[in-house]
Amino acid sequence: MKLFNYFRSSASYRVRIALEIKGLAYDYIPVHLVRAEHRQPAFACKAGDALLPALDLDGGPTLVQSMAIIEYLDETHPQPPLLPSDALGRAHVRALAQMVACEIHPINNLRVLKHLTQTLQLSEDAKNAWYQHWTRSGLEAFERQLQLLAAERAAAGLAPSRLCWGDMPTLADCCLVPQIFNAQRFKVPLDGLPLTMAAGAAAAALPAFQRAHPSACPDAEA
Amino acid sequence: MKLFNYFRSSASYRVRIALEIKGLAYDYIPVHLVRAEHRQPAFACKAGDALLPALDLDGGPTLVQSMAIIEYLDETHPQPPLLPSDALGRAHVRALAQMVACEIHPINNLRVLKHLTQTLQLSEDAKNAWYQHWTRSGLEAFERQLQLLAAERAAAGLAPSRLCWGDMPTLADCCLVPQIFNAQRFKVPLDGLPLTMAAGAAAAALPAFQRAHPSACPDAEA
Repeated sequence: MKLFNYFRSSASYRVRIALEIKGLAYDYIPVHLVRAEHRQPAFACKAGDALLPALDLDGGPTLVQSMAIIEYLDETHPQPPLLPSDALGRAHVRALAQMVACEIHPINNLRVLKHLTQTLQLSEDAKNAWYQHWTRSGLEAFERQLQLLAAERAAAGLAPSRLCWGDMPTLADCCLVPQIFNAQRFKVPLDGLPLTMAAGAAAAALPAFQRAHPSACPDAEA
Repeated sequence: MKLFNYFRSSASYRVRIALEIKGLAYDYIPVHLVRAEHRQPAFACKAGDALLPALDLDGGPTLVQSMAIIEYLDETHPQPPLLPSDALGRAHVRALAQMVACEIHPINNLRVLKHLTQTLQLSEDAKNAWYQHWTRSGLEAFERQLQLLAAERAAAGLAPSRLCWGDMPTLADCCLVPQIFNAQRFKVPLDGLPLTMAAGAAAAALPAFQRAHPSACPDAEA
């Protein structure tokens, strides 16, 4: 497998975590987002969205969209699983992942931030305020959801979650850890989010998450 | 089941389509987005994201995030399926759905548009230009992806798709049809997107999609 990747791309980071959890070897193909290499034909002819990450299957087609890629990896390499074994648990984990991937990240990715400064002529300060507003409000929503899920687990007699849902890393943790990493880069205040930050810290400490860290990537920059 | 819903919410519309395809009865609970009823405690205490839609299971917890809800419905009521039977097909369908749900819709939903006009003081024209820019570029990416998938199907000896992937409605069609409906409301140019518009029209003509249409909702407004 070839993973088209950029060390700082949050969606790329999600897939690297999943590959490391599964223990799958892959070739890392760097595509420099800031230099817009993802718009060059060599990459864009494979991925309709011209976005990172994309996963080239050996001798097969290219997969796009990080959550779809992770679900594919989970279906084709089921151990260890990245989704719970019950439908309700899977719905909760997917919803948490989507609260990051559909509610926080898309409003704050590089192309939107560039549009704010280049097309709308917003200042750097205004751009950073935008990032902080959507990330903070999104993580507050994530925290409320973890609180509701904690109450649901308690009512069902389940142990409290150590990660986003239970004790094993899931698709939700694959999304949360990169989002927290990015939030820290943009200096988003992260106080008052106890369940979220505890789950993020517990996941980030796992060896698979550390191996997937942006600083461990071949194309990492200072 | 109770579906918390707003007739014009694109994410709500996705879940209505899935419920109609599955033939599942549900109570429609209107939550008026423009009047910010989703922020009121009666709803927000159930859904951590305080967003629509949310699905109350009978006597059970509340599910949030439209794609997670649709996957749950598909797992618990497998017929007719909303995902292909093979892992590669599922990856393609999920990716198409996410190209709408993670790349187009989040940048253009009501809270972001309100932020543009109220916080950033953009004009109505600038807000509409924003909507059109992200929706048009997102649908162009969707079209490129459908072209790549059409070539992949041809190479594999599969018949051309009539809907997004194959001939049966999937999660991807549940996301595409509401996005096209919204694009038309905001007068986004939709020329030059032949595969996308053909798939969208074929899906929209199906009875389940018509029953889920915003104009058919109990809270529909002119």
